[in-house]
Amino acid sequence: MSERSGLDEDMAQGLSEVPTSDGLAGPAVRRARAWLSRAAEPGSVAFWRFVEDAGPVEAVRRLRAGRAPDAVRALVGARAGQDASLTDLLRAERCGARLVVPEDDEWPAHLLHCLTLATGEEPDDPRHHSPRTTAPVPPLALWIRGAARLDELADRSVALVGARASTAYGEHVAGELGHQLGERGWTVVSGGAFGIDAAAHRGALAADAATVAVLACGVDRPYPAAHGALFHRIAESGLLVSEWPPGAAPHKHRFLVRNRLIAALTRGTVVVEAAARSGAQATARRAHRLGRQVMVVPGPVTSAMSVGCHELLREAELAAVLVTNAAQVVELVGRLGEDLADPPERPSGPRDELSDLAVRVLDACPVRNGVSPERLARVAGCDVLDVLRVLPALELADLVEVTDAGWRLARPGRTGEGRG
Amino acid sequence: MSERSGLDEDMAQGLSEVPTSDGLAGPAVRRARAWLSRAAEPGSVAFWRFVEDAGPVEAVRRLRAGRAPDAVRALVGARAGQDASLTDLLRAERCGARLVVPEDDEWPAHLLHCLTLATGEEPDDPRHHSPRTTAPVPPLALWIRGAARLDELADRSVALVGARASTAYGEHVAGELGHQLGERGWTVVSGGAFGIDAAAHRGALAADAATVAVLACGVDRPYPAAHGALFHRIAESGLLVSEWPPGAAPHKHRFLVRNRLIAALTRGTVVVEAAARSGAQATARRAHRLGRQVMVVPGPVTSAMSVGCHELLREAELAAVLVTNAAQVVELVGRLGEDLADPPERPSGPRDELSDLAVRVLDACPVRNGVSPERLARVAGCDVLDVLRVLPALELADLVEVTDAGWRLARPGRTGEGRG
Repeated sequence: MSERSGLDEDMAQGLSEVPTSDGLAGPAVRRARAWLSRAAEPGSVAFWRFVEDAGPVEAVRRLRAGRAPDAVRALVGARAGQDASLTDLLRAERCGARLVVPEDDEWPAHLLHCLTLATGEEPDDPRHHSPRTTAPVPPLALWIRGAARLDELADRSVALVGARASTAYGEHVAGELGHQLGERGWTVVSGGAFGIDAAAHRGALAADAATVAVLACGVDRPYPAAHGALFHRIAESGLLVSEWPPGAAPHKHRFLVRNRLIAALTRGTVVVEAAARSGAQATARRAHRLGRQVMVVPGPVTSAMSVGCHELLREAELAAVLVTNAAQVVELVGRLGEDLADPPERPSGPRDELSDLAVRVLDACPVRNGVSPERLARVAGCDVLDVLRVLPALELADLVEVTDAGWRLARPGRTGEGRG
Repeated sequence: MSERSGLDEDMAQGLSEVPTSDGLAGPAVRRARAWLSRAAEPGSVAFWRFVEDAGPVEAVRRLRAGRAPDAVRALVGARAGQDASLTDLLRAERCGARLVVPEDDEWPAHLLHCLTLATGEEPDDPRHHSPRTTAPVPPLALWIRGAARLDELADRSVALVGARASTAYGEHVAGELGHQLGERGWTVVSGGAFGIDAAAHRGALAADAATVAVLACGVDRPYPAAHGALFHRIAESGLLVSEWPPGAAPHKHRFLVRNRLIAALTRGTVVVEAAARSGAQATARRAHRLGRQVMVVPGPVTSAMSVGCHELLREAELAAVLVTNAAQVVELVGRLGEDLADPPERPSGPRDELSDLAVRVLDACPVRNGVSPERLARVAGCDVLDVLRVLPALELADLVEVTDAGWRLARPGRTGEGRG
């Protein structure tokens, strides 16, 4: 039906579907998912189920041969006869990007499983599926720019979302949260927009921490253009992530489709500033429906940019928790993380014998760059005298260490084995 | 044992304990409670139970004759032999005040019942009673300055409490809340301190509404002195209330004892600004223990004066609700008020057929002075176009009327009888 192309020949003859020994999907699978990522807009329940059932390589074959169900073929249309998969993969490589697919070890399967579960509740009849902009469908593949591993960053990550038209207050708080989370070894995940998104990334970068921007366009085509330098810095230490292939334009509906990934890829979502009926509110509600903790930073009741935050905090069914600093965020998502990991029998360590205050100070200590007791006090939400009082005990217990720059967590190697 | 005085003779011979036909306690009862109010500091479970069991007149007789239990006699000490009851009553009269006692119709028995219930849970042994500063004991009598009836004002009242060292933000919000509550016919109850207390009273006064200041000193001795003019204005349209007799000094512990009355005399407590570990937090927690709704206005997380507010909102067991305007406050306490009143079969009126929006606009209309549609929109939390859209229907339903100053609730007389 469609003319034979390089893709079909490659898949039929040369490319293997067998995973490699280093945890990577086979070349045929990657090529097929590259093709699929351009063939249909993400967010379709029917399309995802079709690929899931047939497998990516067979799904491509059927679509190109016109042998897919009508509902699925309609989503692809004339693109069934086109193939830019090799071009896309090469174009990604040229900008330091790659395609991560569910068959790779790096795929954050554990976190994205909530989308699979939610999709399972969609009805059978495609006519009654959730619209693409709100459907909880897993991504078919992720274009990723940056050297870090997505699964590792996402495993200890928090979404920081909020208004584009943010105030100086909101940007200050988002920057502080990004910085404090970064100091504690947590990855910030956000969009790439002006306002809260950018402030959160900048805060994390200032702490020399990895940060992840989930985009609604190609990872080689940063939007907004004014954030070119910011995206470059993010890709250096963290990741740019997108469901859309290189060159894809940031259409408005794509931001709504994208929002589910920000919610799903993180342990919880923090809303810093949000207007009434705003996108940040929508992201928070999606996070809640995916079983993620929603956290909200309040603001002045006189600020239009905090109206949406206060609305979220007043929605009882959302169970959103008011947070004012990173310690409170980590307390919530860290515990959830532990719950999910379900450590069978955690041996008791020196930490278990600490006072509440000492635990707060310990949690305030950054992983990498040492900080002053004043900063620890601010992050831990206690008096600097309290900090000075508990630091010696923490040091004696090999939990913290002092560097030229100040206090930080002790390196695991130094704390001595066999303690637990 | 004690020398005979005017009090004993008056009670033995002239003063009647029989209530008058206009709902007032008999003169002997009032005189006895005046004496008791000076004889012991409020807040003692043992003392209140002794008076409750013996009745006020007999309690005075026994105390003066040295026939009271040791624990109770110890609380009175040498004051058993003194009597300033007549002087106190005359001194109150001279400043436009009076003593309201539980035997008067005006006593807000319904609201104060929560204190009686809570006192019932105190142990029998006086050595194990809650300390005076936190015991939930009903007052023995209330010195009241102002012409309004306490029970009527308290029936539709909200406590507005907060920091003395408030910020311009907090004062603005407290003033707006006081004003909006006053416009809707709700009475503001607060202390008399600088900061949030004063801003709340001033807001209510600016709406020509009654406001109640519960003091920790004599009602003829306003504290702080700089609030002399404010207290004078409060007494003109509202009430100054105190458990302590005229001339009593504002000792520090008396504010803690007083706080239970602010919580008990109102349908709910709104905290506007509060530092960490502050008195306003303590009042909020007391309100919760007395079964009252706790409401909290958030603020910038960068403000030390909002730290206490955010702490309250994070205490799950307190079930505090975040509020940003008077409409949200009235929605909470108004409903509670109705629940308490428990109207057996409320007839359905024109109000029941209104849209949510129309109800919000209706609730935003002041009782007395008309206001602009812009103000209604702000109070109702909706667009001014929405307000203009629903006002004609509300006017046709005889629920609102327009005056030279703007829109207000229609007077009951005009809405026509027999509708419900």
